[in-house]
Amino acid sequence: MTTTITAFEDSPDEGQGLARDMRVRWALEEVGQPYDVRLVSFAEMKEPAHRALHPFGQIPTYEEGDLVLFESGAIIFHIAERHAGLLPDDANARARAIAWMFAALNTVEPPIVELEQAPYLERDRSWYEERLVLLEDRVRVRLDDLAHRLGDADWLDGGFSAGDLMMVMVLRRLDGTDILREYPNLAAYVARGEARPAYKRAFDDQLAVFTGRRPAGG
Amino acid sequence: MTTTITAFEDSPDEGQGLARDMRVRWALEEVGQPYDVRLVSFAEMKEPAHRALHPFGQIPTYEEGDLVLFESGAIIFHIAERHAGLLPDDANARARAIAWMFAALNTVEPPIVELEQAPYLERDRSWYEERLVLLEDRVRVRLDDLAHRLGDADWLDGGFSAGDLMMVMVLRRLDGTDILREYPNLAAYVARGEARPAYKRAFDDQLAVFTGRRPAGG
Repeated sequence: MTTTITAFEDSPDEGQGLARDMRVRWALEEVGQPYDVRLVSFAEMKEPAHRALHPFGQIPTYEEGDLVLFESGAIIFHIAERHAGLLPDDANARARAIAWMFAALNTVEPPIVELEQAPYLERDRSWYEERLVLLEDRVRVRLDDLAHRLGDADWLDGGFSAGDLMMVMVLRRLDGTDILREYPNLAAYVARGEARPAYKRAFDDQLAVFTGRRPAGG
Repeated sequence: MTTTITAFEDSPDEGQGLARDMRVRWALEEVGQPYDVRLVSFAEMKEPAHRALHPFGQIPTYEEGDLVLFESGAIIFHIAERHAGLLPDDANARARAIAWMFAALNTVEPPIVELEQAPYLERDRSWYEERLVLLEDRVRVRLDDLAHRLGDADWLDGGFSAGDLMMVMVLRRLDGTDILREYPNLAAYVARGEARPAYKRAFDDQLAVFTGRRPAGG
């Protein structure tokens, strides 16, 4: 059964791998599942045909036979549930790995997205510079706790899991700021994720969409 | 095996049921599982003993035998996976219900939290009034899409699921604003959730913590 995901035709990051299709690509590479990619333009994303797949008109979507999914968290969980490599076998460890997926998406990512979006939404407002300081401090509140919990471990709870995949991708959204440098163990954690062969394959494939060096898809 | 969750000893909403323990209480009531509640003060939440349960020093936590979980999304998913009543049996419908859980937490809730938090974080800043308009419009972008997808259906995808439970709770965070009144089908959807007997039991139990009319717990 062919799996097809959607990705930006013209990504705002031009191949830095910060768009949410990168998360799904990485998960599919970790479990060794092939997939096709359909590129969509910003205009197409808001059309009824795409909204039928994604109610909020975003990417990525995931199509596999009759199943259509949206939300990178849900897509990665679906992949992790069906293929070995992203969730531990032990029931309690599995539940904790899922908790880290939710923590990445609901506790750590929101203040990072606010910081990331501020230049696009508010750069020309009078308050921009002053508010940036607040936004950075809100991110630090989360990173302080995350760095404390990670300590000198390689991953958040035992072996690499979908929770780490999601957390690494969320922390990567701080690229372009210096905040992660204040947390050497978190910077090393992100680098550890980026060094995984599956990550590199996924990264190269999403980059190829922009450089044209390789066909889209994994 | 006893299940114990944590909740605010002094909730900022004084029993309106907006704190995240309400979500977990509701889920446990839907599946008919008894639970104990341990109340924690704001000071206790930041202490090492609580942080061992919750890395970010928040509520709710969930303890069941050897298992300790944090993040309301993960806790509700854990409950939904083990007990009938919150996820459909059909595999594809189950995956879509999980997608709505993630959509509630990662796509709909973040702009609502920003709007909710602004008075606490920025009321004394010069930009507060002007920025409030931006924040409300960001919420409307999500609600436009959500209202369109829901249409005149009772629930987001077939029968009531954990995805609806989470979305109703996220939309309830708009209490105190008039935004939901602009979306009659979403307001009716929230009312439909609040009318469920399991919701009412959970609501009354969290309220009793503040009124003292009943002992804490379900």
